[in-house]
Amino acid sequence: MKIVIVGATGTLGSKITADLEKDHEVIKVGTKTGDLQADITDPESIKIMFEKVGSFDALVCAAGGGHFGPLNSMTTEEFLKGVNSKMMGQINLVLLGQHYINPKGSFTLITGVLSDDPVRNSVNLATVNSAVNGFVKAAALELENGVRINAVSPGVVEDSPELFEAFPGHKPVSMERVVFAYRKSVLGHVTGQIIKEV
Amino acid sequence: MKIVIVGATGTLGSKITADLEKDHEVIKVGTKTGDLQADITDPESIKIMFEKVGSFDALVCAAGGGHFGPLNSMTTEEFLKGVNSKMMGQINLVLLGQHYINPKGSFTLITGVLSDDPVRNSVNLATVNSAVNGFVKAAALELENGVRINAVSPGVVEDSPELFEAFPGHKPVSMERVVFAYRKSVLGHVTGQIIKEV
Repeated sequence: MKIVIVGATGTLGSKITADLEKDHEVIKVGTKTGDLQADITDPESIKIMFEKVGSFDALVCAAGGGHFGPLNSMTTEEFLKGVNSKMMGQINLVLLGQHYINPKGSFTLITGVLSDDPVRNSVNLATVNSAVNGFVKAAALELENGVRINAVSPGVVEDSPELFEAFPGHKPVSMERVVFAYRKSVLGHVTGQIIKEV
Repeated sequence: MKIVIVGATGTLGSKITADLEKDHEVIKVGTKTGDLQADITDPESIKIMFEKVGSFDALVCAAGGGHFGPLNSMTTEEFLKGVNSKMMGQINLVLLGQHYINPKGSFTLITGVLSDDPVRNSVNLATVNSAVNGFVKAAALELENGVRINAVSPGVVEDSPELFEAFPGHKPVSMERVVFAYRKSVLGHVTGQIIKEV
């Protein structure tokens, strides 16, 4: 299988890559590193990346950020950080990627627990995670040629201890479980699912 | 109570207005009609509207659109219609409105059944409805001075028969039930709720 991994060199992406490249051809995409570079906040950059990739069997995303901060001083500009990156970045990967993906291929996006179980300062990320979850459920009804789509929605991961204080009472999730969720989406048969690892 | 109703002259907004203006001071906001005009896709226009309103006790939104059309030809530009209107339009009403609302006030936004139960062609609206639902749940944790926030999430309404064909198997909801959902949010005590009328 030819698998494109966007965010392949990040904390999570590097684990997913190590897992999937054992048995598959992996194309690593990063903002500055990897086999190919793309800025997911720029649809034109995504399109250039797909033109270089050509056809593929699976796209995995472990990229996209947002704004973490208090609601009472939040500006529209701060809010748009997550909208342009984790939300529209991932949605544009699908809107554009649907024209390059092989029949029976799959898209696997990343969301997170904040959509269901927000914490203080998480308004932007809760919103964009929810948006991508809604996109996945609706897009699964329409993707053609047996193409599937899922989101992996992890809790705060063990490898990000710097976040623990901001997530009181959230039990950290092992990276192994998150990598298994990606395997389920890429190698399994489910579609339209929000695969929760919390 | 001084209640600002954005989208007051629309199909739904006019019913909510008729209900609430019996016992409250209502300020009707429309794009071209009403007591005040605002374009919710433009944060500057929203800010000017709030400056004219001054302090208020409740903001009710029954406005905001999106793109309804097939995924296989959907462009980023089409997708941004819903992002800029029903999603960021409503979110900006809260980001900006939190600085004008009175203690113990409330925000009531509009989403819809497509976040949970999408139909063909609904990818954009499913996404933006989900986004606003996620925003409401997270914002409820942080709004200060007892200010509440909820979303009303109706199914396809009886008064929009032109939509029935696009929603096969969705039982139309009476406008009366949707108006009751707004009453629950504005006059009740709940917060962080997605009030579903399906």
